[in-house]
Amino acid sequence: MPKPQILITNDDGISAPGIRYLIGIMKQLGDVAVVAPDKPQSAMGHAITVGAPLRLQKIVREPGYTEYSCNGTPVDCVKIGIDKVIHRRPDLLVSGINHGSNSSINIIYSGTMSAALEGAMLGIPSIGFSLHDYSHSADFSLTGPFIKEICKNVLKNGIADGTALNVNFPPKKGTPKGIKICRQARAYWQEEFDERKDPFGRPYYWLKGVFTNHDLEKDTDEWALAHNYVSVVPVHFDFTAMHAIESLKKWKFNV
Amino acid sequence: MPKPQILITNDDGISAPGIRYLIGIMKQLGDVAVVAPDKPQSAMGHAITVGAPLRLQKIVREPGYTEYSCNGTPVDCVKIGIDKVIHRRPDLLVSGINHGSNSSINIIYSGTMSAALEGAMLGIPSIGFSLHDYSHSADFSLTGPFIKEICKNVLKNGIADGTALNVNFPPKKGTPKGIKICRQARAYWQEEFDERKDPFGRPYYWLKGVFTNHDLEKDTDEWALAHNYVSVVPVHFDFTAMHAIESLKKWKFNV
Repeated sequence: MPKPQILITNDDGISAPGIRYLIGIMKQLGDVAVVAPDKPQSAMGHAITVGAPLRLQKIVREPGYTEYSCNGTPVDCVKIGIDKVIHRRPDLLVSGINHGSNSSINIIYSGTMSAALEGAMLGIPSIGFSLHDYSHSADFSLTGPFIKEICKNVLKNGIADGTALNVNFPPKKGTPKGIKICRQARAYWQEEFDERKDPFGRPYYWLKGVFTNHDLEKDTDEWALAHNYVSVVPVHFDFTAMHAIESLKKWKFNV
Repeated sequence: MPKPQILITNDDGISAPGIRYLIGIMKQLGDVAVVAPDKPQSAMGHAITVGAPLRLQKIVREPGYTEYSCNGTPVDCVKIGIDKVIHRRPDLLVSGINHGSNSSINIIYSGTMSAALEGAMLGIPSIGFSLHDYSHSADFSLTGPFIKEICKNVLKNGIADGTALNVNFPPKKGTPKGIKICRQARAYWQEEFDERKDPFGRPYYWLKGVFTNHDLEKDTDEWALAHNYVSVVPVHFDFTAMHAIESLKKWKFNV
């Protein structure tokens, strides 16, 4: 049986420790192609580059392993990686390991998860991995066995059409207790801007925020992470709020 | 009764004809504050600015009407507009009118709709408006009566908690026949990159794509637009693919 073709990207940039660790794990599972941003692209959401061209920089091209950096966003990397680097739809797309959590509402800002959703849109089994530790020296070593198990299951079973998996690892408290299939908790960022003055007396503003979660149900990703489980949330790109359709149909529009 | 406070943003930038037209309509409905990007921010998705500070540039500040430009993304504009310009949660947030369609899968790339979703996350009744015409000289004049009716309904009825409305106007074929409440069509972009060479012989790549829709059901936004209706899709920011959870729970993880 031919080895599966795996495409890897991330949003922290190609030299981030998280993607380097993920590459090592994926080489144990198949042929690997890496196409990742040449600089950090955190919080880029599902942004794509439309007003400028993209560049690819070859780093490695050898049998079974290819690595390119790209000047675009994580979603750009998925698109151009398929069209110009591997010239086919991969059998698996993995994104990460992100330095920092993408649980709950963080998914909407996340370049890591946007890359995985782009894969799902293209019909590719796709997974984003994130570790709840922002530091450059985060310890990814406990994530490997879980990543391999999840990827083996995805390669064997596929994923429901149009969905990707959002996998988060809890803050380090020893080996996670196991894997929980969850829904996205309804948490949010309570934000404000820190106002400062530049040397000319003109104001500028830094975004700062506090993560706030009042959704404490046991079926959420936040519950799983707080209790030292790996959270797995199936996510999709259909934004329709189906539950809201019927009430809207009762509205009267005088046009 | 005090006038409603309305916050307006967009992704085409503060000088785009679409937002200028929308401002005129909104002034008929309430007190208006505009906080919009100082340059085009199309296809920025839900990107936010995390590695650099934001700036605000005052353009107008008078009773009932305020206008600022911002160097950030559409989502940044919503956040800073609330915290630093109007200092309260507005009664209504409107984004657009976008030059170009945000129906179907386009929502995921759209700065216009990401601003509306950010509003929904903050508990604000929020609407994104888009016209299926990319040109700078697009004719917005037929959209006004529909926008007013939709906004009046939203101000009166509210929107289901955690949802925003994605409103698209069809390509110009005379006055739209009416308003249809829809779901997001499952369409996608069939994309490839156009490879060129720079004067030094090095390749660069332009993204190009063809919009492809095989989801021809009558309850979709694409059907409504193709039949000259205004499409209204309620959208939310919960990405969980609830239908996929049960089958994932049957997977065996040997960790």
